[in-house]
Amino acid sequence: MLIKENIRDWFSGLQNSICAELELADGSATFISDKWDRPGGGGGNSRVINNGNVIEKGGVNFSAVWGKAPEPVLKSLNITSPNADFYATGVSIVIHPHNPWVPIVHMNVRYFELSTGQSWFGGGIDLTPHYVSEEDAKFFHQQLKNSCDQHHPSYYIDFKKWADDYFFIKHRNETRGIGGIFFDYLKAESGFTMAQRFDFVKTVGSSFTSIYTYFMNRNKNLAYTDREKQWQYLRRGRYVEFNLVWDRGTKFGLETDGRTESILMSLPPQANWQYNHIPDNDSKEQKTLSFLRKGIDWV
Amino acid sequence: MLIKENIRDWFSGLQNSICAELELADGSATFISDKWDRPGGGGGNSRVINNGNVIEKGGVNFSAVWGKAPEPVLKSLNITSPNADFYATGVSIVIHPHNPWVPIVHMNVRYFELSTGQSWFGGGIDLTPHYVSEEDAKFFHQQLKNSCDQHHPSYYIDFKKWADDYFFIKHRNETRGIGGIFFDYLKAESGFTMAQRFDFVKTVGSSFTSIYTYFMNRNKNLAYTDREKQWQYLRRGRYVEFNLVWDRGTKFGLETDGRTESILMSLPPQANWQYNHIPDNDSKEQKTLSFLRKGIDWV
Repeated sequence: MLIKENIRDWFSGLQNSICAELELADGSATFISDKWDRPGGGGGNSRVINNGNVIEKGGVNFSAVWGKAPEPVLKSLNITSPNADFYATGVSIVIHPHNPWVPIVHMNVRYFELSTGQSWFGGGIDLTPHYVSEEDAKFFHQQLKNSCDQHHPSYYIDFKKWADDYFFIKHRNETRGIGGIFFDYLKAESGFTMAQRFDFVKTVGSSFTSIYTYFMNRNKNLAYTDREKQWQYLRRGRYVEFNLVWDRGTKFGLETDGRTESILMSLPPQANWQYNHIPDNDSKEQKTLSFLRKGIDWV
Repeated sequence: MLIKENIRDWFSGLQNSICAELELADGSATFISDKWDRPGGGGGNSRVINNGNVIEKGGVNFSAVWGKAPEPVLKSLNITSPNADFYATGVSIVIHPHNPWVPIVHMNVRYFELSTGQSWFGGGIDLTPHYVSEEDAKFFHQQLKNSCDQHHPSYYIDFKKWADDYFFIKHRNETRGIGGIFFDYLKAESGFTMAQRFDFVKTVGSSFTSIYTYFMNRNKNLAYTDREKQWQYLRRGRYVEFNLVWDRGTKFGLETDGRTESILMSLPPQANWQYNHIPDNDSKEQKTLSFLRKGIDWV
């Protein structure tokens, strides 16, 4: 039987180790810590980093919150007890690098339980390169597949497809990046125990730093021009569009009076928009767009 | 009896005259024209301007579209005939200036009719100064009040309140700017004819250029520092947040497969985000925030 405080403590420790390792990989900036209380119960620690050697703006949030379950949550779960309490804890990360050759990364691991007895894990990792390199995409997906394969042979296929569908900018008909894995409602069912689900979530959470610091170290010193920086700003604009228009977590948080600054730490330091920008034929920008679609098999 | 083609033609003429007058006031850039067809019926002309003397990025959209009414529209109107056709035409404007002392402006006038017999006008003008000047806010609201008062003594009070409620960034607990007027579902009812509603919409549309060029001319040459430009970028970030998270028209357009580039022409050329930015005590930025609330009586 899992104890929520143990899950919370593991997540809190994960936040600490990720921040320490990202600081090391960055080599210059350090995370500041902004602890906050939630009026309805619980709170969090938003750790943010700015203007490092590699990281331009990033955040690693931890929270553990509880109280009366919001009506929309219960409704979406077809739960009719109007007075259910909830407990939610998790870690959420978004990193925006300076160098356009280093990708944007996002990771989230979370646990949710209700006083009605249900509990589940959710989360995922996805990568948004400003320029898609096939080699990097293969590396990234292979790492995720390795993590998944340790726990179940269908995890990678299922959760990769879920990520393709989730990280999709419908109004642009393009994916946010090259996807990754996304999973939710991982319960004690279909032969899994909650302990096994937690083990999987631990593997995912623990894999984050080595995956992302690989890209940081490999690409941080690659030269780039103004053209590539401008393209990065436009791609960040799409990141903003996804997060504010389609991301379920963001929308839910903003609509239910969540902690705005922690939710919107995912937004980039700078994003640009240009009317109807269309890359030149056969340019590397056009090639990148050709990879922003669902269903590409990278491994 | 109003004829929809006459309304459409008046809106199209308004687009032309506004573009011509904005070009004149800008003194450098000219609008390009991007005509488009809507697969389901109708189309539009998106006119966009970039890198002028005064205007950094702006758009003046005209459209006249028709076809089968989208389910969500009918639902929101409590209409049960599933096969109603709609016709919609309007002009929509957003201007982002270079100079942070010149405000962002938005205007929209629109007409909607259904084959079930209903028809109505909607629209509004609102101003988003990067720095709120009480004098400018009074001028702006006085102009709107003058327009409203020509048509009905309660229009200004009612539509000013509607704008306060509509242009509200709930997750920030602040208004987008200093408001203005917003109105919708102006039908032939409560003693008004559709012709009278149209006359009011004409007054609003025709007032746009003189109001906005007043601010352009007055403030375009005011000196500003990097601090003020950086603040402008942050305020534009809030503009993005409002448009993508809360603006009904934007959300509806993106969710119902509207023309993305025309819908998102409202986004700024550049917007910045900074974690938990809080202006210094007694700074002009803090003073501006103190004006971003509902219910301020400017006239």
